[in-house]
Amino acid sequence: MVNVSCLRLAGKQKAAMMMKGLMSVLLVLVAVSSSWGKPDKQPIKKEKRVPQTLSRGWGDELIWTQTYEEALFRAQTNNKPLMVIFHLEECPHSLALKKAFANHKEIQKLADEDFILLNLVFETTDKHLYPDGQYVPRILFVDPSLTVRADITGRYANRLYAYEPTDMNLLLTNMQKAKKLLKTEL
Amino acid sequence: MVNVSCLRLAGKQKAAMMMKGLMSVLLVLVAVSSSWGKPDKQPIKKEKRVPQTLSRGWGDELIWTQTYEEALFRAQTNNKPLMVIFHLEECPHSLALKKAFANHKEIQKLADEDFILLNLVFETTDKHLYPDGQYVPRILFVDPSLTVRADITGRYANRLYAYEPTDMNLLLTNMQKAKKLLKTEL
Repeated sequence: MVNVSCLRLAGKQKAAMMMKGLMSVLLVLVAVSSSWGKPDKQPIKKEKRVPQTLSRGWGDELIWTQTYEEALFRAQTNNKPLMVIFHLEECPHSLALKKAFANHKEIQKLADEDFILLNLVFETTDKHLYPDGQYVPRILFVDPSLTVRADITGRYANRLYAYEPTDMNLLLTNMQKAKKLLKTEL
Repeated sequence: MVNVSCLRLAGKQKAAMMMKGLMSVLLVLVAVSSSWGKPDKQPIKKEKRVPQTLSRGWGDELIWTQTYEEALFRAQTNNKPLMVIFHLEECPHSLALKKAFANHKEIQKLADEDFILLNLVFETTDKHLYPDGQYVPRILFVDPSLTVRADITGRYANRLYAYEPTDMNLLLTNMQKAKKLLKTEL
C-alpha cells in the first residue's frame, strides 16, 4: 500500500489557510513598518490577480467543461467518453500528476481528440464518482451512455482511481479502454 | 415588454455552430488551395488556443467559483451572498451586459469584497434558479442560508432577472439588498 493521494482534511486545510492569512497580515505589517521612515514612497500596490483558468494547468490547449452537468451533456451529445479529474491545488500528489499529464504529448492529443474533459477541485453530489472514497488525485471515466466506468482502475489497491506520475502509460491504456464505448450506437 | 434576453434555442444554435464548422472547413480549403502553388511555404500551423478563464470576461480580477455546489458551500461557510450569472458567449445581450458589468468599478469592488461569484453558460438542475425561465442573461442571488432570493428582481416584467447595460445602478442596489442577509447569525 503506497500513499499516492491526499485526503480532504478540511480542518488541517483551514488551519493552513489561516496560517497563510496570518503570514499575509505579518508581511503587510512588515511592509508598512519598513515604509514608515520613507513618507515619499509610492503606496503599496494591490497585486494584480491572474485570471483563473478552467484548465488549471492540466492542459491549457485543451477544451475543458466547467460543470459535471455540462460535461455529461456534452459526452452524451458528442458520443465521447468523459474524463473527470479530481484534484486539489494544495496537494503535492495532484501537482505532480498534473505536471506529468500536461507534459505527456500522447495523452494530451488523445484527450483533445476523443474526450470530454472536466477537472474539479470540489466534489459533486454523484456517489458513482467516488466508488472508493473522495481522495485526490483521482481519475474516473464516464461512458456517453452516462455510466461511470468503475471498471477502469489504476494500480493501487487502496486507491483504485489514483495515478502517480510514473503511471502515465497505464493512464493512456485506460483512456484507450474508455474509448471503446459500452453502447456504440446513439 | 422589451426583448432584453436570449433564449436557449438548441436547434438554432446547432445550426449556427454547423455553419461555423462549414465556414472553418471552407477557410481551411481556401488556405490549402492558396498554398498549392507555393510548395516551399511553411505548413499551416494549428492556431494556439487561449486558455479559457473562469471569469469569462465578467471580471478577470475577481475570484470565481467553478460549480454551483462549490459556490453554495463557499456562500455558507463564508457567510456571504452568492451571485449567479447565467449567460451565453454567443448572445449579444449577454455580451453587452458583461461589458457593462466588467467596466463598472463599484460593482466590481462590491462583488470582490462581499460576494461569492459564479458565472455559468450551462443550467444547473436547481429549479429555484429559474423562477421565470432559463433565458440569458439572468442574475440571481442566493442567501448564505441557501435561500434563492427570488424577491430581488430587475425592471422587466417578462424577464424578472434580466438586466441591460443601462441597469447597472439597479444591479448595484440589488447587490446591496442581497448583502442584507436573511439570517444574520451563523
